[in-house]
Amino acid sequence: MEVIKGGVTAAKGFKAVGIYAGIKKKRKDMALVYSVVPAKSAGTFTTNIVKAAPVKWDIKLIKEYETASAVVLNSGVANACTGAEGEINNKRMAEAMASNLNVSANSVLTCSTGVIGKQLPIDVITVGTKLLAEKMEESIEAGTMAAEAIMTTDTYSKEYAVNIQIGDKVITIGGMAKGSGMIHPNMATMLGVVTTDISISKALLQEAISANVKETFNMISVDRDTSTNDSLIILANGLAGNKEITEKNKEYDKFCKALKVVTTNLAKKMAADGEGATKLFETIVIGAESKEQAVTLSKSIITSNLVKTAVYGNDANWGRILCAMGYSGADFDPDKVDLFIESVVGKIKLVENGMAANYSEEYATKILSAKEVTAIADVKMGNETATAWGCDLTYDYVKINADYRS
Amino acid sequence: MEVIKGGVTAAKGFKAVGIYAGIKKKRKDMALVYSVVPAKSAGTFTTNIVKAAPVKWDIKLIKEYETASAVVLNSGVANACTGAEGEINNKRMAEAMASNLNVSANSVLTCSTGVIGKQLPIDVITVGTKLLAEKMEESIEAGTMAAEAIMTTDTYSKEYAVNIQIGDKVITIGGMAKGSGMIHPNMATMLGVVTTDISISKALLQEAISANVKETFNMISVDRDTSTNDSLIILANGLAGNKEITEKNKEYDKFCKALKVVTTNLAKKMAADGEGATKLFETIVIGAESKEQAVTLSKSIITSNLVKTAVYGNDANWGRILCAMGYSGADFDPDKVDLFIESVVGKIKLVENGMAANYSEEYATKILSAKEVTAIADVKMGNETATAWGCDLTYDYVKINADYRS
Repeated sequence: MEVIKGGVTAAKGFKAVGIYAGIKKKRKDMALVYSVVPAKSAGTFTTNIVKAAPVKWDIKLIKEYETASAVVLNSGVANACTGAEGEINNKRMAEAMASNLNVSANSVLTCSTGVIGKQLPIDVITVGTKLLAEKMEESIEAGTMAAEAIMTTDTYSKEYAVNIQIGDKVITIGGMAKGSGMIHPNMATMLGVVTTDISISKALLQEAISANVKETFNMISVDRDTSTNDSLIILANGLAGNKEITEKNKEYDKFCKALKVVTTNLAKKMAADGEGATKLFETIVIGAESKEQAVTLSKSIITSNLVKTAVYGNDANWGRILCAMGYSGADFDPDKVDLFIESVVGKIKLVENGMAANYSEEYATKILSAKEVTAIADVKMGNETATAWGCDLTYDYVKINADYRS
Repeated sequence: MEVIKGGVTAAKGFKAVGIYAGIKKKRKDMALVYSVVPAKSAGTFTTNIVKAAPVKWDIKLIKEYETASAVVLNSGVANACTGAEGEINNKRMAEAMASNLNVSANSVLTCSTGVIGKQLPIDVITVGTKLLAEKMEESIEAGTMAAEAIMTTDTYSKEYAVNIQIGDKVITIGGMAKGSGMIHPNMATMLGVVTTDISISKALLQEAISANVKETFNMISVDRDTSTNDSLIILANGLAGNKEITEKNKEYDKFCKALKVVTTNLAKKMAADGEGATKLFETIVIGAESKEQAVTLSKSIITSNLVKTAVYGNDANWGRILCAMGYSGADFDPDKVDLFIESVVGKIKLVENGMAANYSEEYATKILSAKEVTAIADVKMGNETATAWGCDLTYDYVKINADYRS
């Protein structure tokens, strides 16, 4: 496997672009990802009962149609809690995009992100779809423009791509995502689009992405708020020319591994760029008796406000980590837990068998001062493990969210 | 029912005091609540798997003994994650207090709050128990001193007391509590002691307090972190002289109602004085089809970081409230929800049938600027209701918790 430049335009036959349409005040606000041939489509979406209009649209389309040709995305307005008018506007967005691409509206998926409760400025968006169709390109730069156009409070755009060999063909998988706030995906992510030129059956593509999110996007949290708009869409257009993958063979496993590299990278970037975050906080639970237990414990740690503020303050306040494990709902023996922290600076044991180990607070603070910090909790019950990613809780999180709309 | 001055010393035959023993740097750090005759004891405690030594001690004592004579409390050190040494220290604290009060150690309950993972400075505490026994008084002021001595990051002490008539006797119920951080009680509260001179059976006293917390302390949250030390203890010494309550009759109901007034008041004070909080945020869910649904929805709203920061910013960002309801796990139809906000300034409808109602943002901001703000969500499915209390999430929460230990 080889890491390459680019994102959604890295794979063969995908065009993209990001433009300023006029939904937001100044920044790019619409993006398009287009496959020159119809692509097998799959996706995972928010489990929030309050689902945005584009989420409902995509779930229906992916279920009913084998392929999709494009994803049109906007930032600034989430088109959630907008009732029947919101659904009509969403359909008009897909239809306008389809008309400019000369494809069926049923092959255009939609994603929206931004403020909840406001209607889409549909006239502005309709004009935007024309611009998107005119300006789309296969270039790496065009992919980056698309990744930039879906940003809200993100501070940088998120892309990643890899090449793998399947048979005698080179397969590319590339993706983009946005995150930042209201990030606690449950079977999905805020907004993510992954493109690949692999040839694979729709059923296996869906299975691959559904299994994938459980260990990637579903393992990150910025603020424990599961959005109304979480969407992860994958398009596979088959242009790499490999023999179509129709069963879970070695090639399928190879594809899944590479897909995990791409989505893990995007998920970690999303956690690290959480609203107001100064650092990436990774938690690994080892020695668990079940995967479920490891997942529950690791997510409970990364979502605790008290742990997150301690990480911000470079404070090795490990009692908060044990406390967060204790109320997680998972069963374990607190008197057996070992706890370590690790970063580029080094690694130390903070807790041995549930009590303070003999460590230097000064050195612990140094380890925690790095940009990426890992906590490792060993519950000594079995061999299962899980990794979750979050970020610290800072003044800026409060600042950003106390006046998000103004 | 009459609201009266005082807290744990309001009822007949209870003495208390708070002193500076030397656990913390400058502030009062030990408290005593003592009944001049053995009092029926009951309590509820944290559901966190990681339980502090005093919690384990109290659960055992309340189960095995009909009565207790005293509660000795300290702040500064939580005596949690302290292993066998922690349990020995806790027992020594009870024994020292018992010796100075001339009672059995098995009649002395203990509570600790503060930093997790540090051992109690047992010599300092032993000296402290002597001082407590010498200085305890029946005065209102002595009760307030006790309430002050259990504060950690609380900004004011929390007490409340009421009188009710049972038969021809006046019964008093008074209590104190501390909260502020790591507040998300589950079947208990951070630290609370309620005293009453009512005569009641131990079984009914336990039943009353267990039912009570479900609607009071368990309905508040500051940061969704369930502490290792949550304890709510009630002592009933019978000195009011009423005929002992041994069944669920009218008198029992009257007592429960009055008890709820006391604990609701303490719980609301705890939420309003949450770490860094500038205001009390109350959420009422009405029209629910079950109590459980109403509880789940109301707690999901008050614990959302995004809702809490919006409340801090006086921003009527109702989409975040609907979003928090949507991911709560409770089932409802988002397209039927009505949402109101209310304070001393006035009341308006923000959402009608899941969509923005016609309201003035300016007026909404004015309503939200009050010190106590209520959100009312009507899910239109039935007649059940629940009320939860929380607070806003502010810069100061981050500040307090980024360097709590330094």
